[in-house]
Parts: sequence; structure tokens; C-alpha cells
Amino acid sequence: MVDIIHRVGIAASADEVYSALTTNEGLAKWWTTDTTGAGNVGSIIKFRFDGGGPDFEVAELQPDSVVRWKHSGEMPGPWMGTEVSFHLSRGDNQTYVLFSHSNWKEPSDFMGHCSTKWAVFLLSLKEALEKGEGKPFPNDIHIDHDE
Amino acid sequence: MVDIIHRVGIAASADEVYSALTTNEGLAKWWTTDTTGAGNVGSIIKFRFDGGGPDFEVAELQPDSVVRWKHSGEMPGPWMGTEVSFHLSRGDNQTYVLFSHSNWKEPSDFMGHCSTKWAVFLLSLKEALEKGEGKPFPNDIHIDHDE
Repeated sequence: MVDIIHRVGIAASADEVYSALTTNEGLAKWWTTDTTGAGNVGSIIKFRFDGGGPDFEVAELQPDSVVRWKHSGEMPGPWMGTEVSFHLSRGDNQTYVLFSHSNWKEPSDFMGHCSTKWAVFLLSLKEALEKGEGKPFPNDIHIDHDE
Repeated sequence: MVDIIHRVGIAASADEVYSALTTNEGLAKWWTTDTTGAGNVGSIIKFRFDGGGPDFEVAELQPDSVVRWKHSGEMPGPWMGTEVSFHLSRGDNQTYVLFSHSNWKEPSDFMGHCSTKWAVFLLSLKEALEKGEGKPFPNDIHIDHDE
């Protein structure tokens, strides 16, 4: 099993970051504008990119601290069985977000693509909270010429 | 052992990308402006950030295809024993760069930080080649408020 991990520091409260990870409105500001279904543990969040996109089930919520999703239903083959988590911790003037997309079966070109793309979206989360405007799909930064 | 991997696609020839990974002038346009020592296999490249920074020995060069560095001398503890590689491949209208920073002993906050930061620098490489200007240190994008 191999994992993608990232870490950013955001000048916002843990509560503000947690909201951006657990509500449709918050998620729509940094990952994809077409986000529905966010809610309590057991909710299925539908992230859509031009119609298609993954569903994740909310697996764990610890307010202002931990958000964990597990894959739900059909998604790109390499994402089957994977989990996404966000661990929040406070610094002096920022909230750190330690992100992981874990349990990939093997490294691949596609995993490399997703790793870079997650970085772009986490910087979008940072911008959304610090500047009021992120870059969610369809306004996301492109990292190659296939997108 | 755990690895960081990333992948970007750059609208430039493999030769142009290879030059940006193997010459002081090229490296200075996307990672740090203070880069010296780049050359053939066995060369020690000194990457400096406000005076400090890592040395890497050039371990493998396959023109327009593979660049591999291994750690040399002192560097942050978790980077000791690690390797950095770039594998280039051609697409229809772009050169793909599959990046890895491999052989970390364990995942950590610092590894998460470096993973996100490498994404930022690979996008800097992409901008340098596509737009003529990247964002090398000290003009790099900050991903937290400790930098």
C-alpha cells in the first residue's frame, strides 16, 4: 500500500477549516463547485466534475480535528479501496492540515497526477479561507495538457 | 520506505525539460536561484536557500529521459539516504515529468510539507518552460506561515 500525503498551514481557525471540509458550501469553494451530500458520519458526498466524479462516505468526524472519508461505489479503479483524511492541528498563527489519500495498491503515473492535483486543491483550500476565493473545479489550475 | 511522487505535463520538448533539470541555469529558473555544481554523473549540485540547503550527487543521466540524484553530505535528517528522480516521456503535445523523492524512512509532517512543496516547484518548472518565468526560491509560493 502506498499513500499520498501533503501538509499546508492556513491562517484561519480550526473551526473555519473544519467547516470547509465538512459542508457542501465549504467543499464547493475549493475542490469542485458541484458538491452534494456532505453531512454526518455515514453521509455519501458526491463530488462531480462535468457530470462524473467520485463518491466518498464520511467515515469519521472529530470536530476541529479529524475528517476521514472512505471510497463509496464506483470510481477510477486505482481509487477503489482508498481513504482520504484530514488531520487538523493548531500552530501559533495558523491551522495545519495534514492530508492523506491512502491505501493505493501501487504507485503509478495516475497516482503521481493525483498527488500533484491534490496539492493544487489544498492550495485552493488555503486561498479560499485566507483570501475568500479558491480555485475549485472548473476553475482549477491545470497540471498537464490532458485536462 | 515511503516515497513522494508527482506528475506534470509540460508543453516543451523533452530536450528543453532535460536542460532545465541538468544545468545550473535551468535549475535556477524553477527550484532555487542559488544553484551551482550541476554537470555530469558524479557532480555535486549545491542547492542553497538563504545560505543553507541540500547537496545532491548526480547519480544517473539518460538524455531526454532520466535524471536521478542521490543525497550527498549533510541535509535535513529525514532527507538522509533519499533519492530524487525525474522520468521524462513524450505525449502528443507535451513532455510528462514523473517525479519521485524516494526512500523516506517514514511518513511525517515534514514529509507532507515537502510533498506539497515539490508540487509547487514542479509547477514552477512548468511555468518556467511554458511562460518563460518560474517561481524559484526566493520567489516561491509559500504553503504555510513558517516559511
